[in-house]
Amino acid sequence: MTDLVTFGETMLRLSPPRGERLETATDLEFRAAGAESNVAVAASRLDADAVWTSKLPDSPLGRRVVAGLRRHGVETDVVWSDEGRQGTYYLEHAGTPRGTNVVYDREGAAVTTAEFAELPVSRVEDAEYVYTSGITPALSETLEATTAELLAAASDAGATTAFDVNYRGKLWSPAAARESLEALFPDVDVLVTAERDAREVLARTGDAGAIAAGLAEEFGFETVVVTRGEDGALARHDGAVHEQAAFETDTLDPIGTGDAFVGAFLARRLAGDGVATAMEYGAATAALKRTIPGDVAVVTREEVERVLAEGGEEIKR
Amino acid sequence: MTDLVTFGETMLRLSPPRGERLETATDLEFRAAGAESNVAVAASRLDADAVWTSKLPDSPLGRRVVAGLRRHGVETDVVWSDEGRQGTYYLEHAGTPRGTNVVYDREGAAVTTAEFAELPVSRVEDAEYVYTSGITPALSETLEATTAELLAAASDAGATTAFDVNYRGKLWSPAAARESLEALFPDVDVLVTAERDAREVLARTGDAGAIAAGLAEEFGFETVVVTRGEDGALARHDGAVHEQAAFETDTLDPIGTGDAFVGAFLARRLAGDGVATAMEYGAATAALKRTIPGDVAVVTREEVERVLAEGGEEIKR
Amino acid sequence: MTDLVTFGETMLRLSPPRGERLETATDLEFRAAGAESNVAVAASRLDADAVWTSKLPDSPLGRRVVAGLRRHGVETDVVWSDEGRQGTYYLEHAGTPRGTNVVYDREGAAVTTAEFAELPVSRVEDAEYVYTSGITPALSETLEATTAELLAAASDAGATTAFDVNYRGKLWSPAAARESLEALFPDVDVLVTAERDAREVLARTGDAGAIAAGLAEEFGFETVVVTRGEDGALARHDGAVHEQAAFETDTLDPIGTGDAFVGAFLARRLAGDGVATAMEYGAATAALKRTIPGDVAVVTREEVERVLAEGGEEIKR
Amino acid sequence: MTDLVTFGETMLRLSPPRGERLETATDLEFRAAGAESNVAVAASRLDADAVWTSKLPDSPLGRRVVAGLRRHGVETDVVWSDEGRQGTYYLEHAGTPRGTNVVYDREGAAVTTAEFAELPVSRVEDAEYVYTSGITPALSETLEATTAELLAAASDAGATTAFDVNYRGKLWSPAAARESLEALFPDVDVLVTAERDAREVLARTGDAGAIAAGLAEEFGFETVVVTRGEDGALARHDGAVHEQAAFETDTLDPIGTGDAFVGAFLARRLAGDGVATAMEYGAATAALKRTIPGDVAVVTREEVERVLAEGGEEIKR
Amino acid sequence: MTDLVTFGETMLRLSPPRGERLETATDLEFRAAGAESNVAVAASRLDADAVWTSKLPDSPLGRRVVAGLRRHGVETDVVWSDEGRQGTYYLEHAGTPRGTNVVYDREGAAVTTAEFAELPVSRVEDAEYVYTSGITPALSETLEATTAELLAAASDAGATTAFDVNYRGKLWSPAAARESLEALFPDVDVLVTAERDAREVLARTGDAGAIAAGLAEEFGFETVVVTRGEDGALARHDGAVHEQAAFETDTLDPIGTGDAFVGAFLARRLAGDGVATAMEYGAATAALKRTIPGDVAVVTREEVERVLAEGGEEIKR
Amino acid sequence: MTDLVTFGETMLRLSPPRGERLETATDLEFRAAGAESNVAVAASRLDADAVWTSKLPDSPLGRRVVAGLRRHGVETDVVWSDEGRQGTYYLEHAGTPRGTNVVYDREGAAVTTAEFAELPVSRVEDAEYVYTSGITPALSETLEATTAELLAAASDAGATTAFDVNYRGKLWSPAAARESLEALFPDVDVLVTAERDAREVLARTGDAGAIAAGLAEEFGFETVVVTRGEDGALARHDGAVHEQAAFETDTLDPIGTGDAFVGAFLARRLAGDGVATAMEYGAATAALKRTIPGDVAVVTREEVERVLAEGGEEIKR
Repeated sequence: MTDLVTFGETMLRLSPPRGERLETATDLEFRAAGAESNVAVAASRLDADAVWTSKLPDSPLGRRVVAGLRRHGVETDVVWSDEGRQGTYYLEHAGTPRGTNVVYDREGAAVTTAEFAELPVSRVEDAEYVYTSGITPALSETLEATTAELLAAASDAGATTAFDVNYRGKLWSPAAARESLEALFPDVDVLVTAERDAREVLARTGDAGAIAAGLAEEFGFETVVVTRGEDGALARHDGAVHEQAAFETDTLDPIGTGDAFVGAFLARRLAGDGVATAMEYGAATAALKRTIPGDVAVVTREEVERVLAEGGEEIKR
Repeated sequence: MTDLVTFGETMLRLSPPRGERLETATDLEFRAAGAESNVAVAASRLDADAVWTSKLPDSPLGRRVVAGLRRHGVETDVVWSDEGRQGTYYLEHAGTPRGTNVVYDREGAAVTTAEFAELPVSRVEDAEYVYTSGITPALSETLEATTAELLAAASDAGATTAFDVNYRGKLWSPAAARESLEALFPDVDVLVTAERDAREVLARTGDAGAIAAGLAEEFGFETVVVTRGEDGALARHDGAVHEQAAFETDTLDPIGTGDAFVGAFLARRLAGDGVATAMEYGAATAALKRTIPGDVAVVTREEVERVLAEGGEEIKR
Repeated sequence: MTDLVTFGETMLRLSPPRGERLETATDLEFRAAGAESNVAVAASRLDADAVWTSKLPDSPLGRRVVAGLRRHGVETDVVWSDEGRQGTYYLEHAGTPRGTNVVYDREGAAVTTAEFAELPVSRVEDAEYVYTSGITPALSETLEATTAELLAAASDAGATTAFDVNYRGKLWSPAAARESLEALFPDVDVLVTAERDAREVLARTGDAGAIAAGLAEEFGFETVVVTRGEDGALARHDGAVHEQAAFETDTLDPIGTGDAFVGAFLARRLAGDGVATAMEYGAATAALKRTIPGDVAVVTREEVERVLAEGGEEIKR
Repeated sequence: MTDLVTFGETMLRLSPPRGERLETATDLEFRAAGAESNVAVAASRLDADAVWTSKLPDSPLGRRVVAGLRRHGVETDVVWSDEGRQGTYYLEHAGTPRGTNVVYDREGAAVTTAEFAELPVSRVEDAEYVYTSGITPALSETLEATTAELLAAASDAGATTAFDVNYRGKLWSPAAARESLEALFPDVDVLVTAERDAREVLARTGDAGAIAAGLAEEFGFETVVVTRGEDGALARHDGAVHEQAAFETDTLDPIGTGDAFVGAFLARRLAGDGVATAMEYGAATAALKRTIPGDVAVVTREEVERVLAEGGEEIKR
Repeated sequence: MTDLVTFGETMLRLSPPRGERLETATDLEFRAAGAESNVAVAASRLDADAVWTSKLPDSPLGRRVVAGLRRHGVETDVVWSDEGRQGTYYLEHAGTPRGTNVVYDREGAAVTTAEFAELPVSRVEDAEYVYTSGITPALSETLEATTAELLAAASDAGATTAFDVNYRGKLWSPAAARESLEALFPDVDVLVTAERDAREVLARTGDAGAIAAGLAEEFGFETVVVTRGEDGALARHDGAVHEQAAFETDTLDPIGTGDAFVGAFLARRLAGDGVATAMEYGAATAALKRTIPGDVAVVTREEVERVLAEGGEEIKR
Repeated sequence: MTDLVTFGETMLRLSPPRGERLETATDLEFRAAGAESNVAVAASRLDADAVWTSKLPDSPLGRRVVAGLRRHGVETDVVWSDEGRQGTYYLEHAGTPRGTNVVYDREGAAVTTAEFAELPVSRVEDAEYVYTSGITPALSETLEATTAELLAAASDAGATTAFDVNYRGKLWSPAAARESLEALFPDVDVLVTAERDAREVLARTGDAGAIAAGLAEEFGFETVVVTRGEDGALARHDGAVHEQAAFETDTLDPIGTGDAFVGAFLARRLAGDGVATAMEYGAATAALKRTIPGDVAVVTREEVERVLAEGGEEIKR
């Protein structure tokens, strides 16, 4: 039995050196990156037994993705395809007022043709947790169906299903997202949503507590986590509310902050911790992530616990 | 009036440092690269007034292509599109027995939807030479039609049309290529073909001289250039045959060798040189190109002429 | 007719990686950089038709400058010289208390011998705006005369002349600068000056408004722009005063901030905007510039307008 | 049941850019490298199910080793230790007459204290092949005993044991090596030795065939492979002799050539191929390895088979 | 006669690019670094005649250390050893909450066997100042004895001895450090200690003034300097107290801040300045150091004096 | 007494990565380089006590030169100047047919104003050998006089004077060089000349032996060394002729080959070896130099002697 199975697209991320523009860049950093594999990496690094499954082109680019994940201890169970591209995205890091900019080049990716029956169904059914995010159904009609079947099958098999809204305005409209996601919610046990997505996509109002309560009530989620950036996060679980402040952090790369939170949260839930403790690990892992270039939280459980125990120190020697 | 207009796809080329594999690479070099723009750059650097036209996505990636060409003095006349991708290719350099490997990621490129009427038709009609290659019609049915219209319009307007067979086995079969290309040949004045392509795609036999003679006769080309790698090149023009040896070269990057040859050849034809002299410039520029990383011949006319005059010297100081 | 012609020295800029000292550096970044070409680039990127003219050594270094500018869409109209060097400058980036340090190595540059008659006079006379800065007359007596002739000729031809005081203490004394610049002012329509230069070089007193009013009155400028760093800028035009706050910015490279402001300001004036709107574009472009390594504002008009419309957002995806 | 278990030290390899000296280097490449893990990687990449086992310090450096291996699909089964260092080596690449130079910094490595009982004994006993090399017993007395126990246990459990002499003159004398290794040979089924090591360490004479025959006879090896660098390799198996020429190769990094050969040889033996076929795969993989920076053969089975089928081609596109 | 002789271990420092983790790093910066040589470099750069003495392995790594120091004008007087390693340390830079992390790999370094008689004793005895730090006796019992002999010999010969507590929790416990250091104090004239070390290792209480007074009284130090990070420093000398604020600084690399302070302090004491002035130079040099990557203060006296005179300016040109 | 004093210009060398053109380069390597300091470095690394003297601008660039030399153990005795530039040169590495290209930017260098009286005359007079080359008098009239005075003073003081013709066609004509150099020859004891320079500048004919004999006879040189690239070198000393073959070498950077030869030759002459042995060391050091990027021979005496003893080996481990 696997602790956690995640399903989704992992892209190759191409980014010029800090501050440089794509238009004049001559060198790009090259990394594997995707919400669902980010979650698997964070969970794996916090000692969960995590599997990432997807569909990739049988090419050096597809193999680059797998190599980038396996080194973190994530098991990859991949459908290799002769059709379809490897999705990529280009990233320009910048501070105010430019802002970090993402240029997607992911149309026609092999994963957009992934049908549920192709995936390692028995692994999904044997998992304790199954996770995907709102990016997946946004990628193609096929994936919208696959996501639904995945969550239903996991639910039927007794897995806990976790889902992050992860709204991407470059992929679909709020209205389309809302319709699609709400159709999935009956098979979701743990919902994660940014407060902003809850407002702009799910049309929720009120403060984070009201949002969580409303969602829990309307869709019957076991747990709702509302993330609020620098303002921390709030979880509602079994009727109880847990607030968690964000840790102060020197941000080097903000991409993947939420995924680090979710991966650590799930790892601790899998380890038997309560929601409050899992939120603490999530927040500390998210803060560490922001100090690390790339999408994934290259941390150890010991490092996360040191943040929880003592906060930061300028030099450790 | 422009000296030379070229039309075709220019991609972004992503390559790991020398010898590294894509699967384990963490950094990629990032350059603009495409047969027809390579030709425009070589011609421009040898003092021709060259324009490259194409269709690009209106994105930082499309702008990266334009910036990469303009710095060489090529004028770019581009249709900016909200639809379609920027084509890319990944390149792994390697020596024997691995060989340099190209992984195309060019499906769905904006250029594949380029119709002739979108292009700067008057510039094509005002050009002295118009050039494209066999890669262009291989990319889409639309481009197959556009290529035919381009060559016909140029021909009608009195331009000299030049065309390189440039067979790419990863894009189409020899039979498909032959059928498509032979349909274009009636509007081509100057045909360039690798000896190997002449044999495998155009089904020619005999030595290079026989190939050139046969093609000239069958299709009525004004000039046929048969390139033979390290064995040099042969041109048949107005019934006369010109043989040109290859210059010795320390190869750092073989990509774009043929395009450098053609660009220099056309620049000298435009400058009024005869075919024999243009072949010399072509061969010297091709040899220089192989010492330079990237697809394009970053040379000056003076450097080309120094090779012609004196060959190489270890250090110039 | 060209929108904007700028004239001045463009150097090659050599800088070690962030924080490293020249004394121990083993690698240097290599870029083209100069106040007047920076202005041309910013204007060109905001859709003006900009030409940069100067005199360069006929060498790979001179060609490096041209290549560096052309990729931004600036047209270069250069006098190639067999005499004189390519000016360079070395740059050490540092924060407080070290400060970014510039080491000029520009003596004997080819441009210092540029006489007005060598330059593309007809382009200057056909331009809508002509721009140079106080660096140019500081470089040589020849250039002092050339600058005067350039501004006079442009003025006579009906162009609007724009001039930035751009005082450089490593080139001349405040007194020498004042004498030279005030002799040029009768042919200047739009004066730009840092508040500090106005005080220390032009011996002005009072606040920015008083400075602008005094300069306008004394020299008859159509427009006076006083820049004040983080405190924004103030323009006096036709007797009206326009204040513009600076946009908040995460500074990666402060060099070229003022040039970005001026280039954008001129581009919008050329596009028909009033002074107040042009100031807004100037301020937003200047803020974006500071997030970008190198001297030039590698931005698009859309990016500038997004800053004007909405300010920054952490990640755009 | 695992196909292949390998045991030995994996170091971190630190090397300056091509040609640079350590004494003046400012940047070092950082890779994981070790004979036995190199073999596991090559075997894994040719589709064997390979496990590498060892003892590592519980530190970021030990984790760096594991991450470096896992990305190739090798499973790592590591004893994490609070005592002992992570071995490293410094590598200066150079051609004639300098030669590539290795500076070991591996004393006191955690692995030197690895006792057999600590290792995953059941995995060793369940493996089809067990591999280690003559480097392992050279590292400490403890490892000399552990190597003996490992080979004995594997042998007893019915695994095929493979052993490469891999003599390292910087670790021990030929005499010491001979005494130690010959004590291990009774438990070895497949012996691999460089011809030079056979002569200088094992005191063999005659040609490669005579060496193989003599070793097989004296120690009862099932298979003896004698590698001869550019002269290829010779195997003696069940009394039959198989000669294999080396493939021509453009060498970028010669380190790990022999390990690539062995890994591929074992993978094909595991896949059921005969010795002659396994030797072909070994030679082709070794030739590919030399085109790749780092110790490991980052290849695919398809690439190896393309070399076998057709040899090299300059560009594949 | 030499101004300053320092003795201690200098390591090679290996650090991944900003923010990257060792576990996933592929490139490391490579520098020489050690408290006592850092002090010698800072003093030398502020015009003292400084010698660093130590014991190094006779290898490219040992030579790398010497080359790294000599370029700053420090004379190196080294015992070259055939035994023992070159100590190294790995450094991961990070901000809050991760913190910069140091992984030592210095066991078995050649210097740990350095006996006093091996060192250039006559140079020590001819020096005006002799400096070492609390790291040295922490490294081995031999070095604990050598440190004692060094300080005693210097004292006997009339040199002023300076000593920085420099507690390293990864090397020894506070109790062990206290016992060892207090045994050395009778031969120390100038004691430098971080306020935190004074509390946690030397068991001092009260504010910095009380700490300095107590230490001076108990051990008879001529000078006691208590450093307090962002809160500046305090010196007690001949009964008088001098407080020095820290200069504001944009920190790029905090390692070596204290050593820069001490090196500059000693250089100015050697130049005849009083303690108050020496503290100013120390504070300004420390602030500059933090803007520079690496352990050493690559500054000039002029730069330090510019900070003292005027504070920072954004760009100097 | 110093073993060797060398005098001449050392520049900063700026070179793009292998094969890249200056015109499109974005990064440059940065090194100190000059014939006379190259000789001092090679001699110093082969255990001579070497001093380099020159005049440098008092700037970070001048200090960069000194730092670059001191790390090799060369003592620098420099006149710091407030006038004059730091000379630089740009280097494009390339193979056939492009050839490595040098772009000098050395006009107006501080050293061109160096008068003999400014230099450390007593060190010159106390040296055993004094060395400069034909580049020095080519740089300015002042330096032509200074070179003459230097050689005369050294000669008068009893030093052995060594001089390399080192003709640079980008600095002067063969006729001008011949006139200037022949005026210096009466004060030269050891003349080194490339065979090509002997022919083209000194107007010598016949084979290398005849050249050496003729020069020795005409000018009374104690030793004449004629270098012949891949054909080795020939020395005539006290009437005896010594021929030395070149060692085979894989060339990575050919710049500085001759200087490495001379530095090693002089170091061995200083150590008491005869001319034949010194020629062997010269040839081996020159061969090693060509495997190393940069102008200087970063070697040890042990490495040179290993080449002499055994030639190369692919990997040393």
